[in-house]
Amino acid sequence: MLQDNSSVILHKINDIRLEQKPIPKLTKGHVKIAVHSVGICGSDIHFWIHGRIGDSIVKSPMILGHETSGTVVELGEGVTNLKIGDRVAVEPGVPCYKCDQCMDGRYNLCPNVNFCGNPKKDGTLTRLYCHDANFCFKLLDNMTYEEGALLEPLSVGVHACRRAEVTGGDTILICGAGPIGLVTLLTARAFGATNIAITDINAKRLEFAKTLGVNHTILVDGDPQSTAKRAIELLGKMPDKSIDCVAFPPTISTAIYATKSGGTVLLVGLGPPTSEIPIVNASVREVDIKGVFRYKGCYQKAMDMIARGLINVKPLVTHRYAMEQALEAFEMTKSGEGIKVMIKCDPTRAQLK
Amino acid sequence: MLQDNSSVILHKINDIRLEQKPIPKLTKGHVKIAVHSVGICGSDIHFWIHGRIGDSIVKSPMILGHETSGTVVELGEGVTNLKIGDRVAVEPGVPCYKCDQCMDGRYNLCPNVNFCGNPKKDGTLTRLYCHDANFCFKLLDNMTYEEGALLEPLSVGVHACRRAEVTGGDTILICGAGPIGLVTLLTARAFGATNIAITDINAKRLEFAKTLGVNHTILVDGDPQSTAKRAIELLGKMPDKSIDCVAFPPTISTAIYATKSGGTVLLVGLGPPTSEIPIVNASVREVDIKGVFRYKGCYQKAMDMIARGLINVKPLVTHRYAMEQALEAFEMTKSGEGIKVMIKCDPTRAQLK
Amino acid sequence: MLQDNSSVILHKINDIRLEQKPIPKLTKGHVKIAVHSVGICGSDIHFWIHGRIGDSIVKSPMILGHETSGTVVELGEGVTNLKIGDRVAVEPGVPCYKCDQCMDGRYNLCPNVNFCGNPKKDGTLTRLYCHDANFCFKLLDNMTYEEGALLEPLSVGVHACRRAEVTGGDTILICGAGPIGLVTLLTARAFGATNIAITDINAKRLEFAKTLGVNHTILVDGDPQSTAKRAIELLGKMPDKSIDCVAFPPTISTAIYATKSGGTVLLVGLGPPTSEIPIVNASVREVDIKGVFRYKGCYQKAMDMIARGLINVKPLVTHRYAMEQALEAFEMTKSGEGIKVMIKCDPTRAQLK
Amino acid sequence: MLQDNSSVILHKINDIRLEQKPIPKLTKGHVKIAVHSVGICGSDIHFWIHGRIGDSIVKSPMILGHETSGTVVELGEGVTNLKIGDRVAVEPGVPCYKCDQCMDGRYNLCPNVNFCGNPKKDGTLTRLYCHDANFCFKLLDNMTYEEGALLEPLSVGVHACRRAEVTGGDTILICGAGPIGLVTLLTARAFGATNIAITDINAKRLEFAKTLGVNHTILVDGDPQSTAKRAIELLGKMPDKSIDCVAFPPTISTAIYATKSGGTVLLVGLGPPTSEIPIVNASVREVDIKGVFRYKGCYQKAMDMIARGLINVKPLVTHRYAMEQALEAFEMTKSGEGIKVMIKCDPTRAQLK
Repeated sequence: MLQDNSSVILHKINDIRLEQKPIPKLTKGHVKIAVHSVGICGSDIHFWIHGRIGDSIVKSPMILGHETSGTVVELGEGVTNLKIGDRVAVEPGVPCYKCDQCMDGRYNLCPNVNFCGNPKKDGTLTRLYCHDANFCFKLLDNMTYEEGALLEPLSVGVHACRRAEVTGGDTILICGAGPIGLVTLLTARAFGATNIAITDINAKRLEFAKTLGVNHTILVDGDPQSTAKRAIELLGKMPDKSIDCVAFPPTISTAIYATKSGGTVLLVGLGPPTSEIPIVNASVREVDIKGVFRYKGCYQKAMDMIARGLINVKPLVTHRYAMEQALEAFEMTKSGEGIKVMIKCDPTRAQLK
Repeated sequence: MLQDNSSVILHKINDIRLEQKPIPKLTKGHVKIAVHSVGICGSDIHFWIHGRIGDSIVKSPMILGHETSGTVVELGEGVTNLKIGDRVAVEPGVPCYKCDQCMDGRYNLCPNVNFCGNPKKDGTLTRLYCHDANFCFKLLDNMTYEEGALLEPLSVGVHACRRAEVTGGDTILICGAGPIGLVTLLTARAFGATNIAITDINAKRLEFAKTLGVNHTILVDGDPQSTAKRAIELLGKMPDKSIDCVAFPPTISTAIYATKSGGTVLLVGLGPPTSEIPIVNASVREVDIKGVFRYKGCYQKAMDMIARGLINVKPLVTHRYAMEQALEAFEMTKSGEGIKVMIKCDPTRAQLK
Repeated sequence: MLQDNSSVILHKINDIRLEQKPIPKLTKGHVKIAVHSVGICGSDIHFWIHGRIGDSIVKSPMILGHETSGTVVELGEGVTNLKIGDRVAVEPGVPCYKCDQCMDGRYNLCPNVNFCGNPKKDGTLTRLYCHDANFCFKLLDNMTYEEGALLEPLSVGVHACRRAEVTGGDTILICGAGPIGLVTLLTARAFGATNIAITDINAKRLEFAKTLGVNHTILVDGDPQSTAKRAIELLGKMPDKSIDCVAFPPTISTAIYATKSGGTVLLVGLGPPTSEIPIVNASVREVDIKGVFRYKGCYQKAMDMIARGLINVKPLVTHRYAMEQALEAFEMTKSGEGIKVMIKCDPTRAQLK
Repeated sequence: MLQDNSSVILHKINDIRLEQKPIPKLTKGHVKIAVHSVGICGSDIHFWIHGRIGDSIVKSPMILGHETSGTVVELGEGVTNLKIGDRVAVEPGVPCYKCDQCMDGRYNLCPNVNFCGNPKKDGTLTRLYCHDANFCFKLLDNMTYEEGALLEPLSVGVHACRRAEVTGGDTILICGAGPIGLVTLLTARAFGATNIAITDINAKRLEFAKTLGVNHTILVDGDPQSTAKRAIELLGKMPDKSIDCVAFPPTISTAIYATKSGGTVLLVGLGPPTSEIPIVNASVREVDIKGVFRYKGCYQKAMDMIARGLINVKPLVTHRYAMEQALEAFEMTKSGEGIKVMIKCDPTRAQLK
């Protein structure tokens, strides 16, 4: 059975196919993983529809997917932190370990990072996948494979809340109630934030956010200043930190106008290359504007918070598909109907979640 | 009725009396408070038994008490943040506002601070008490007076966790399961710590800590190195931060030995003037040793965490006494039988908690 | 002689007059100062030419000036930190001491700040001026009055370098070689920066910067990306921090493009309300964007650095005028010919500098 | 000539010999260096006299030395950052790159670090030495080999000042005027400290410190409290930060008593395993106690500060010996007569410094 290496391959724009790929060769320090669950990310959809993200262009067939969990089936030379049979979550970006950024503890900024599921490196929507053992995290016993796959987006939320220094008693504004806005919401609550408002242009998403315990929701239907004003009214004060999970000019502007003097605006989203924003409003009030790029050192902490019950990501999974139904899964994700769509790569279907 | 100003007065060592005191004069910027609930603190007991704490010596009769909530009954000139009838918690130390420490945002270190319940300033175990309105915090509607009084010790836990930078996914060791250890435990959990061990020499206290959700308890019966080793075994790793709520040589040493390289030891307790400790072990592993003095800017955040359900301090109150039973209350506190003993200063008994 | 209170008064746009004003009344905690030297700031010129800065509109005659030194001639009640005859520098903004920002150590963000030389409060271009003694700093013996007046712009540079965390061995890009760019340059060097480039569109300013020891100068004649590229080439690497003392869209963009991943862009200048900038470039490289508003706690540190010879601001003073020549002084400042223009308010001319 | 690999070998206590050793094999990513200058460190002397430092015990002959500069004579596979003929300084500790500490940017705390000149790895008092190219730093053109070798102790001073956050205008107390105290002094000045006092029990060392520009010297002849009082008198205020380069109980105590509330005590020295210190005095005044272990990311910054003239380490070299005179060099270092003793390993003597 392990000789089957069916993979979800993007050939070109709007052209996804399920095809066999050679089983990847296991190298030193790596493990071979029988992939179980892979979440579909907005970037997967973007590659599928546009054939590129910025300078990253699909020129030859590539395997998609990078939100991954599975089971270790083979150990490369020198691997000691894992054993065969371990259920693991895969942190998809492996840095070079040796550049200035890596040595300075910011491996997420490593210019030589090897991130999977893009034109430079095949992804995890495949039966068998090899990965640096240092970037595979053993799932705690009470966790499902899907929770393992969700560690990827959750780590974005954790990194965002750490960079924004969210802490007990904070008042927080989150712009955008998509998957990243929601994991940021869950993380901010787990970090002790007591008063959280979330915005979106989609009322259904806001309803979903309410089920995750947000204090206030704001359906955006006006300009940034009026949205900011509404947020301040609902929160009863200017937020200590605003986390913008959209990062388009209107949401960045809303975040700046809303945040208290001396506070922080954290940008998680990826808007257009340039934005017209009220930067002076931020600078003269010493509102710091910070961004995040992926995450670093967040997987274990995110896993511990799930395992101890501080964060419940299970409700985020709204749809599940077998790998053979990958196209359907992509269509559903694109529709925006669901929150997180999972593709199940394990042909045995031994465990659904 | 408001002319009654019965007060719990410490005359000298082992001499507490309930006596009438003149009603204090209300000044500009202050409010007059009908005191409702006052928690007894270890320092109250220390003054009672020893007649002093360090250089702070009881030379003339003083009113004890500083963990306080009550109702505003009169507004001083210029007060706008409160109104008559507001239920408030009292932050007992009022700084000078103008010294370098105040200007630098560290008002808890103000050398001119005016803290109540000690030989320099009468405390709150009285019917009517006046206080700077800036340091009175309106209780949220769903909170009890006792929760208001508990904001004082809870703020110590919040300040400790902020200074230690406790955050989501942290592994924490707490030395000492007395009232301060317990509020620190509650705060660390609310800040997202996932793995917490607590030590004590008293098995009953550890049992109580379990009811508050600590992950591991350690009954101390050996030397610091073996206690540290036991903590590491239970936690599965060296703690990121250790918070010592005892601060005697053995607990400081345990905290140092246990904490991971690059971590933090936070001292909350007040041990002897000098301690013999393994300071080199800390310094060569870059384990930072920080202390806390009271708290700053913590009352509102502590209140919000209680009101939103992130922290539940109610179980800490194990005994309640009317002001007339103050001596009994002090005896009970001294016995160590209870956790937090409350004295009810409201003669109407309108609301018990 | 002290009954003369000639003052430089702005009546309306382009209408400055030298007129007598009543001697201000000395209040508790304040001192009366015989003003000696006042530097002209860009904001003084802006009020003169435009009659406003943002929402701050000149509606009735106001005294200009806020970069000030002088001699204490009278002590208000309770002043103990100064005595008559002390030569002092005046920190022009006095906060309320009691708001959340003040209590949090960020008094420069106090919404109730009382800053002189604007429509809300008369400035220091006058013979006699009263000020909160806490915000008057005794000049060290080896300092001139002009160095005292220059503490105001220098404090902006110090606050900028502290917020940007400039430290030993840093590589720095400064955008703009006007007075603020130059004091930032002097400060960055004093903080240990080893490799500094400065940009301007004015070649003469760059020549002046060279005399202050900048490592590289860049005459801006292209787009932000090419200016950033040029800065990186000259510096031999991407700067750790970029400090933009202009803060118009092209300089903000240059600063963002130039700064290394994980570095900081610090905005000191005051550009238009909104700017179109490559904010995503900053956020995905985790380049933090911070602003500064004036300064806090910088006067004494700036003074110490001057007095100990780490910073030499004397060359910045290029022109001096008697108060009676105020109009000439303003014209010269407006022309951009000089760097810093001083107005001498002491009628005795006892000491020129 | 390069076949000569004379080396200074410690056989056992008090037994140093000059002997030939096989030329080390060059491996991937490493470079072979013709060693030029090696400074003798207190730890070399300690191994020589005691045969051990803590648990690090000399059991078989080892080459001493770790403060090193030389010339690249051969490149290992894959080295691109250096070329043959480059003059380099050698950072002696190479971490594992992959452990949690390395990934977190604290490679100096790596438990697997490979540091040379101790029982686990031969040192640099040899003709030819191989080292990871990532930890070799090309000397700037205007620097001598001796300045290169001095980057090792200077990096300790730089790391200490970075951990203590020394910045412009700071008041600093340094305990101990030995080599580490002196490089800390030089660094603190380069970082902008304006007011520095240094203590020692040796008047000659204090005289030397004066030549390096310290503001005040204190000959220690009393207890810690009186020394602290003297420091505060001389400095005119409590120091913002105290850096203890001795770290014995009296100096740690002095540093704690002297430092202002909210300040930092930084421990660089290595005193006895346990010390009796006034830890409560530190903790209730929120004086943070931090240690340093070696340094991380400091070599390039230290080099830049030397090359740009912010730090002058040349006066620290008081004695020079040929490798053949190693025993004399060790005797001189042990005598405490000099500050820094250099051993010249280049048999050509082409350049003395």
